[in-house]
Amino acid sequence: MQSLSDFFNQIFSCMSLVTVGTVAFDSIETPFGKADRVVGGAATYISLAASYFTEDLGLVSVVGDDFPNEELEYLKSRDINIEGLQIKEGQKSFFWAGRYHDNMNSRDTLVTELNVLADFDPVLPESYKDGDYVMLGNLTPEIQMKVIQQMNNRPKLIVLDTMNFWMDVAMDSLKDVIQEIDVLTINDEEARQLSGEYSLVKAAQIIHDMGPRFLVIKKGEHGALLFEGNKIFFAPALPLAQVFDPTGAGDTFAGGFIGYLANTDDLSFENMKRAVIYGSAMASFCVEEFSISRLKNLQGDEIKDRVRRFIELVNFDAKL
Amino acid sequence: MQSLSDFFNQIFSCMSLVTVGTVAFDSIETPFGKADRVVGGAATYISLAASYFTEDLGLVSVVGDDFPNEELEYLKSRDINIEGLQIKEGQKSFFWAGRYHDNMNSRDTLVTELNVLADFDPVLPESYKDGDYVMLGNLTPEIQMKVIQQMNNRPKLIVLDTMNFWMDVAMDSLKDVIQEIDVLTINDEEARQLSGEYSLVKAAQIIHDMGPRFLVIKKGEHGALLFEGNKIFFAPALPLAQVFDPTGAGDTFAGGFIGYLANTDDLSFENMKRAVIYGSAMASFCVEEFSISRLKNLQGDEIKDRVRRFIELVNFDAKL
Repeated sequence: MQSLSDFFNQIFSCMSLVTVGTVAFDSIETPFGKADRVVGGAATYISLAASYFTEDLGLVSVVGDDFPNEELEYLKSRDINIEGLQIKEGQKSFFWAGRYHDNMNSRDTLVTELNVLADFDPVLPESYKDGDYVMLGNLTPEIQMKVIQQMNNRPKLIVLDTMNFWMDVAMDSLKDVIQEIDVLTINDEEARQLSGEYSLVKAAQIIHDMGPRFLVIKKGEHGALLFEGNKIFFAPALPLAQVFDPTGAGDTFAGGFIGYLANTDDLSFENMKRAVIYGSAMASFCVEEFSISRLKNLQGDEIKDRVRRFIELVNFDAKL
Repeated sequence: MQSLSDFFNQIFSCMSLVTVGTVAFDSIETPFGKADRVVGGAATYISLAASYFTEDLGLVSVVGDDFPNEELEYLKSRDINIEGLQIKEGQKSFFWAGRYHDNMNSRDTLVTELNVLADFDPVLPESYKDGDYVMLGNLTPEIQMKVIQQMNNRPKLIVLDTMNFWMDVAMDSLKDVIQEIDVLTINDEEARQLSGEYSLVKAAQIIHDMGPRFLVIKKGEHGALLFEGNKIFFAPALPLAQVFDPTGAGDTFAGGFIGYLANTDDLSFENMKRAVIYGSAMASFCVEEFSISRLKNLQGDEIKDRVRRFIELVNFDAKL
């Protein structure tokens, strides 16, 4: 039974997209440079990327009182609702430090300080609870499940991103939440680990049977695969002259992907393909600079120009 | 000054495609099975793949007297001229044994017995010397150079395949032969090693400056990139339910690629794109079984069906 205020919330501030994930500091070393305690976190990248496609988005996360107010103001300036972002007085924000190997495809984690994340309990503001699109960024499966459970109705689309770590330490709860979602985004090695199958085609079938109708396999500089039933779509990553820092690329992809879907509100396979291309386009910006720098000042035309480069990159006339 | 016999050779038995490379035995272990002393070698895979596109092809290689006659007869049955294949009495064929890791993207070499390859001196039959297309399979750069030097005229297109090993032990002679060719095919890590650049876009520019007009970067299950000047084309690898043994996939790709070009005799970028797709289609067959088994009985329609799957895989309507 809905209260009157719920009713008005639904009409007047219906949230298209709800994102949960980390908002954090990262220290990063790549072969091309170092960045010390820069803004990072899955929800930061996701929301920022999505903000280029939809204005109705709410963020669920937690930071300490060390997180710069101007960064929060910046998110708000991008029409990101941060009502669901808890700020814990006297505590510190989540901090991750990592060093990329020369080939940029693998990295070592140097430091992980959970800080405020250790006992994070996500609380959705009322205005988020009727969101149509939900993006569950990489976090413990339990937190991801708690977000789903707080929604008033089953959202139109729930996308979940996760990683091998949760498969190692919390496979059962991960499978529980995977059962509740529509799109799973993981990388190729994770798809193999989750399914126990080497072939990504077979892995996709097994993962479909676990619940999600769609599977997106993110392969970093090697592109991304979209599976639905027997249908497969492949989007390459754009070959770039400058690959500076891959941190956040997967989250930026996810943000562009779900942002595009929330904006177009069309879950056909043809539209999901476009969402994968827009996600890939957003990720191609992310890697060009450290942190969220390159995502801060994008123009609409720049995004469309990138999409055109995807078309050129794969277009051929088979003359069959 | 041409002799009369050269003149007639040119008219009556002009060789479209000349291939040099190994013809060998392989012992292979993958997570899916073992194959002991099966037929392998770069020139075997290249010629066989190319034989589906052109009938005018000559093979240059060396084997011992242990190489089964029926396998040589099979090559001949595919219209592959083996006049340039030396058979060394009392000697053994090149033998390689390897074991693939669980992820199939890396492998350990267990045994390398050069045998007849140790003092291989390629000798081109007269009938090969006017070939228009030359495929230099992975071998010492010196042997590759000797093949080029024996051609009567500059061929229309010389494609060279090589590997990191020659960059480690013979970089100078490798660069000498790279200067003489039109298309270099290497993998992504090798492109980075050869150029000293991480970005494949920058690596391609540096490699262009070394000589080759075209660069093909083979990324195995992640597809292939074609570069010419500022133009880039990407062909994915087909996601397959069954990936049995990657051995020979790169050579099979090269064979389909140059075979298609020799058949169409068109070096425009648009046609080079199609050649990359046909090469990728041939490679997608190669990995489905051990050795050359899957390449032995392909029907024309099967190849076209694979090409159609490439179109479906990457096709999208951007609605820009």
